[in-house]
Amino acid sequence: METLSVDTFKKLREVSTASLTSELLKLGYRNTFMKGVHPLHTNSRLVGYAFTLRYIPAREDLDFQVEYDNLKNPQRVAVETIGENEVLVIDSRGDISAASLGHILCTRLKCRGAAGLVTDGALRDTPAIRNMDFPTYAQAAHGTTSSVVHHPVDFQIPIACGGVMVQPGDLIVGDDEGVVVIPAHVAEEVVNRCHERDLLEGWIQEKVASGASIRGLYPPDESTLAEYKAWRDSQARS
Amino acid sequence: METLSVDTFKKLREVSTASLTSELLKLGYRNTFMKGVHPLHTNSRLVGYAFTLRYIPAREDLDFQVEYDNLKNPQRVAVETIGENEVLVIDSRGDISAASLGHILCTRLKCRGAAGLVTDGALRDTPAIRNMDFPTYAQAAHGTTSSVVHHPVDFQIPIACGGVMVQPGDLIVGDDEGVVVIPAHVAEEVVNRCHERDLLEGWIQEKVASGASIRGLYPPDESTLAEYKAWRDSQARS
Amino acid sequence: METLSVDTFKKLREVSTASLTSELLKLGYRNTFMKGVHPLHTNSRLVGYAFTLRYIPAREDLDFQVEYDNLKNPQRVAVETIGENEVLVIDSRGDISAASLGHILCTRLKCRGAAGLVTDGALRDTPAIRNMDFPTYAQAAHGTTSSVVHHPVDFQIPIACGGVMVQPGDLIVGDDEGVVVIPAHVAEEVVNRCHERDLLEGWIQEKVASGASIRGLYPPDESTLAEYKAWRDSQARS
Amino acid sequence: METLSVDTFKKLREVSTASLTSELLKLGYRNTFMKGVHPLHTNSRLVGYAFTLRYIPAREDLDFQVEYDNLKNPQRVAVETIGENEVLVIDSRGDISAASLGHILCTRLKCRGAAGLVTDGALRDTPAIRNMDFPTYAQAAHGTTSSVVHHPVDFQIPIACGGVMVQPGDLIVGDDEGVVVIPAHVAEEVVNRCHERDLLEGWIQEKVASGASIRGLYPPDESTLAEYKAWRDSQARS
Amino acid sequence: METLSVDTFKKLREVSTASLTSELLKLGYRNTFMKGVHPLHTNSRLVGYAFTLRYIPAREDLDFQVEYDNLKNPQRVAVETIGENEVLVIDSRGDISAASLGHILCTRLKCRGAAGLVTDGALRDTPAIRNMDFPTYAQAAHGTTSSVVHHPVDFQIPIACGGVMVQPGDLIVGDDEGVVVIPAHVAEEVVNRCHERDLLEGWIQEKVASGASIRGLYPPDESTLAEYKAWRDSQARS
Amino acid sequence: METLSVDTFKKLREVSTASLTSELLKLGYRNTFMKGVHPLHTNSRLVGYAFTLRYIPAREDLDFQVEYDNLKNPQRVAVETIGENEVLVIDSRGDISAASLGHILCTRLKCRGAAGLVTDGALRDTPAIRNMDFPTYAQAAHGTTSSVVHHPVDFQIPIACGGVMVQPGDLIVGDDEGVVVIPAHVAEEVVNRCHERDLLEGWIQEKVASGASIRGLYPPDESTLAEYKAWRDSQARS
Repeated sequence: METLSVDTFKKLREVSTASLTSELLKLGYRNTFMKGVHPLHTNSRLVGYAFTLRYIPAREDLDFQVEYDNLKNPQRVAVETIGENEVLVIDSRGDISAASLGHILCTRLKCRGAAGLVTDGALRDTPAIRNMDFPTYAQAAHGTTSSVVHHPVDFQIPIACGGVMVQPGDLIVGDDEGVVVIPAHVAEEVVNRCHERDLLEGWIQEKVASGASIRGLYPPDESTLAEYKAWRDSQARS
Repeated sequence: METLSVDTFKKLREVSTASLTSELLKLGYRNTFMKGVHPLHTNSRLVGYAFTLRYIPAREDLDFQVEYDNLKNPQRVAVETIGENEVLVIDSRGDISAASLGHILCTRLKCRGAAGLVTDGALRDTPAIRNMDFPTYAQAAHGTTSSVVHHPVDFQIPIACGGVMVQPGDLIVGDDEGVVVIPAHVAEEVVNRCHERDLLEGWIQEKVASGASIRGLYPPDESTLAEYKAWRDSQARS
Repeated sequence: METLSVDTFKKLREVSTASLTSELLKLGYRNTFMKGVHPLHTNSRLVGYAFTLRYIPAREDLDFQVEYDNLKNPQRVAVETIGENEVLVIDSRGDISAASLGHILCTRLKCRGAAGLVTDGALRDTPAIRNMDFPTYAQAAHGTTSSVVHHPVDFQIPIACGGVMVQPGDLIVGDDEGVVVIPAHVAEEVVNRCHERDLLEGWIQEKVASGASIRGLYPPDESTLAEYKAWRDSQARS
Repeated sequence: METLSVDTFKKLREVSTASLTSELLKLGYRNTFMKGVHPLHTNSRLVGYAFTLRYIPAREDLDFQVEYDNLKNPQRVAVETIGENEVLVIDSRGDISAASLGHILCTRLKCRGAAGLVTDGALRDTPAIRNMDFPTYAQAAHGTTSSVVHHPVDFQIPIACGGVMVQPGDLIVGDDEGVVVIPAHVAEEVVNRCHERDLLEGWIQEKVASGASIRGLYPPDESTLAEYKAWRDSQARS
Repeated sequence: METLSVDTFKKLREVSTASLTSELLKLGYRNTFMKGVHPLHTNSRLVGYAFTLRYIPAREDLDFQVEYDNLKNPQRVAVETIGENEVLVIDSRGDISAASLGHILCTRLKCRGAAGLVTDGALRDTPAIRNMDFPTYAQAAHGTTSSVVHHPVDFQIPIACGGVMVQPGDLIVGDDEGVVVIPAHVAEEVVNRCHERDLLEGWIQEKVASGASIRGLYPPDESTLAEYKAWRDSQARS
Repeated sequence: METLSVDTFKKLREVSTASLTSELLKLGYRNTFMKGVHPLHTNSRLVGYAFTLRYIPAREDLDFQVEYDNLKNPQRVAVETIGENEVLVIDSRGDISAASLGHILCTRLKCRGAAGLVTDGALRDTPAIRNMDFPTYAQAAHGTTSSVVHHPVDFQIPIACGGVMVQPGDLIVGDDEGVVVIPAHVAEEVVNRCHERDLLEGWIQEKVASGASIRGLYPPDESTLAEYKAWRDSQARS
């Protein structure tokens, strides 16, 4: 399911979710940034391929106070199936009245090489998860175990998370601002555009920080772009 | 997928969603009544088997201003697959910022013998739908076509609707109060219990309406139950 | 607990909740109209003294699937205690995920001479309640019985309902717009002011409907007030 | 400010808000249907040019229990300025904790020839307004007068209403489903496209109602379009 | 009102709210973790007996710009009545449009030996409160004093807080995840079960962190439980 | 537009938003503290004059994927117009589904001498903004650029922000608790009252922290006030 070259995948670690969102917008994608999904850690950085898991509302005969069967329960099977560089993305319907997952499963995800965890629901054991070196994003914390509210039903199918479509294999990128979803087939292009964009915006930012007006500079007019191009070329030479 | 005897299915038309919810509760099911899902018609009465359809958030390359392909689009295929006595139940994630469906597809559902339509999203063409003799339940009305917000992704799998789990083949019952979901494997039992319950509650209601105190009557104590049993037996004889 | 003269109580049936809200505002009361509480009937008209009942969240050992004890359960005792011209006002914390009450208890309330029922939660058996000649106001309909969500804890103490303070004995007035709460000690004054206000506003409304500008008329300037006074005097004489 | 020919303006009365929304979408406008704004009347039909009015939160020194100055208060001046075929559209910030307007001002709007009233806030005196023959759309009913919550600040400038941009002079069209805003400069085109669309969809609807599958019909394939064109030509000839 | 042995009370400081919630669930209590109530401090730890206080909406004649009477106002009397190891738990109806309490009263609570403060409303002076060594939990911060929105009405009666029933004397436990309410009569049992559970889960967590699959381990199967028991016994001996 | 003496402006840096809110309340202003608007920095301190900017919902022909014209776009013109000691306050209608502004414009605001930035919407590039020494307040973070959701329409007119009226030139004060708006014409009075109030409350706080009961002390009775006055006089002398 990996779709990016090693070099591109590496570049993804250097661009912000805001930049990615802007470049996706230029390709026509308006709705790519998850709503209400926040990092549990500061200086959080998440890059990986979506491994999706879907929850629906629990029902007493299937979920409540029923022991999990690790060999069949889709949540447990997903955790034991996920691979390296994959991100577990859970469709929790935005329901934060119980957790989507807790500390032990997070630990297992990390041990399997997963890149991180994203849910539009809540997490439990958040004090312990905050002490792990494992990027996690959620809407809230809640002490109640998932089975009171959620029934894990299937995985690796298209889902909703944070109001955004997520397909298995989509690129999931997170920073301290939040999480962006990049459709797999445009990821290569978006990353490269972002890289160029960040060079330009960094150059603009430096000028603005030095006191320049944004007029003609942001967005850059032709003369500014020419000046930038000259600088960019000189940088490339050195 | 039909699970009920003709007689039981018929009885379902005579019980209220409030009664069904109470009897499901006695079996341990606390969460069976959809939240925020209202009938478009007055004196609405819906009974049928769930035929589920799932939407996730739309994405510009897949949905927006793309012509529907009737042979592949899961929404259209679902509409052309649904059978008699089935209810199309759509998981719209409670999103009412565009419609889930409109008048022409409703008309087709009715022509195919479907029993009704339930969505936790919005409907469009609601003035025309209100003029149809076809039970529909939704959270709101919205003029915008579904593809701006929704991507139909699959059907006949377990979904969420109005905060309740819906499995294909579950019994869907609606009246002017709203919609209840009955797990298929307990439907027969629940209907029969409801029938008995309604006889008892009708008898109690009559007494209360005639001025009786609820003490000893509602809930009925042993002496009341004995009196009821005598009346019930006399009714059965006549 | 009755605080109004028969004549004043009767006048209350003739004024709108909008007028009452405005006169209460003139006395400094800004927050008297319940939020999100709607009539179940059209042409609804409710006037009575508040009889308050308070619910808190249910707990499994006290509420769930426990048979109601009519001699002790505060909901049942309240229903069997309420008197003529009293309105049962339930503090349901605005929680509409289950009902506050249903048809049989409504029937008992009516038989006891209660003036009506107000809750900021939901009601069940709403199709049956709509067929009763008994003014009821609620936020929603829900088929689930109250004990899943609500624990009745005490009655005839000050409560919140629809975001407004309600003291036992306050005047509760409802029409098709909603419900206003009038503190008992200002009710007499407010009703009389409303009566005068409605005469004036009716006279203004007639002029506006005949094509008059609102300038100088609404609000009335001195010359308009003089004209009104003359008309009012002539009316009084005839 | 009138931008449409008499003929086009008349055609607007015959198309649904759902059709208009779809044709606007084809021109690239995704967000044209107001959220949460409902008609007070059944069989409501509103067509007119937007006359905008903006409210911001009230402040005690400017609003509360201050007598309205009809010669200066922007709400009152707007009401006395609006002309024929114009619709008063109020930006109430979606705040329904007090009314935006009441019965007397509605009456004056009607007498001045205004086409209707739209607010994303609440209205008061709604029982009286429902008895008027004057199309009004709001989010809720609330008995409290506007000055407790709203400060009218200016009119005939671009505003937000129901989550949609409204420019003075935009076309406002309402039916039982809700309200759509048509940018003035595309109104002529949209109306004509809608007229054609409704003819086609009516023809499709009739076929579906007669039992046709939606395959090849909705959306119409080439062969269906040819059949429709033939029917359309025959209709034009007769 | 103290119900726990000194030893058990001490153990409560060592278990997480997530563990407590799970053990309460096993006893049938599903709704024990407060919704939307967060610690103001990091590394927060709260253990104590609930001392409840109830607010209802303010009314101008009783609350607004009226000087507090410390001898009668229930908020002030509660603050001067609370004892050691007690937690002031305020039912603020989840209303965050003004504070429930501020810095000076927090200081008094601490001086009286109270264990902490919990409200489902807001707090004011939060920068100063964050500098205190006193565990506080709230939904938000708001600069406005309580009397604009809240009327303190009574204390030491059952209340709602964060959507959970709280009885005077219930155990209130808080950590960085949030707050759990333990009914007094099951507290001893729950604490002991939690202690055992945490030993087991710690052992499992260590295995998972070392790379073990969750299959057979989490939840533990019979062979795992036997292995754990052996380890547990060896620990007990050492 | 500056209305305060240098001395008073300086004093504003020493008072808390909670104190200011209380003194505004004593003058009759109940609604002055913004709802849901939080600082991005800890130990945040903002004082300045409001420079207002208004957004309405975006429309595709005016906003989406249209290059910003820095010479005309009101957002850009506002940024290039704002002066020293002014705070850019943006009416974003509380919409957090896209950003109101990002890092480069924040940098420009700071370079122009602006005192800070307040929006009731979201900000983007929040990790970079958090690294700036520039006080910013917002409701959330969102990676999406403003033009997808917002159309900047005008500036320096009265607006709504966080549910509070903001007039150009009003005093905007922020701390870690949030943001308060002080009408320009009462600012001098309010600041001075706050200064006095803080002296008194600091003296009370110290007594409470030393173990004094709040009875007679908070609020202070006549004897306490006399004691305070003596202390205050002694302080003034030293």
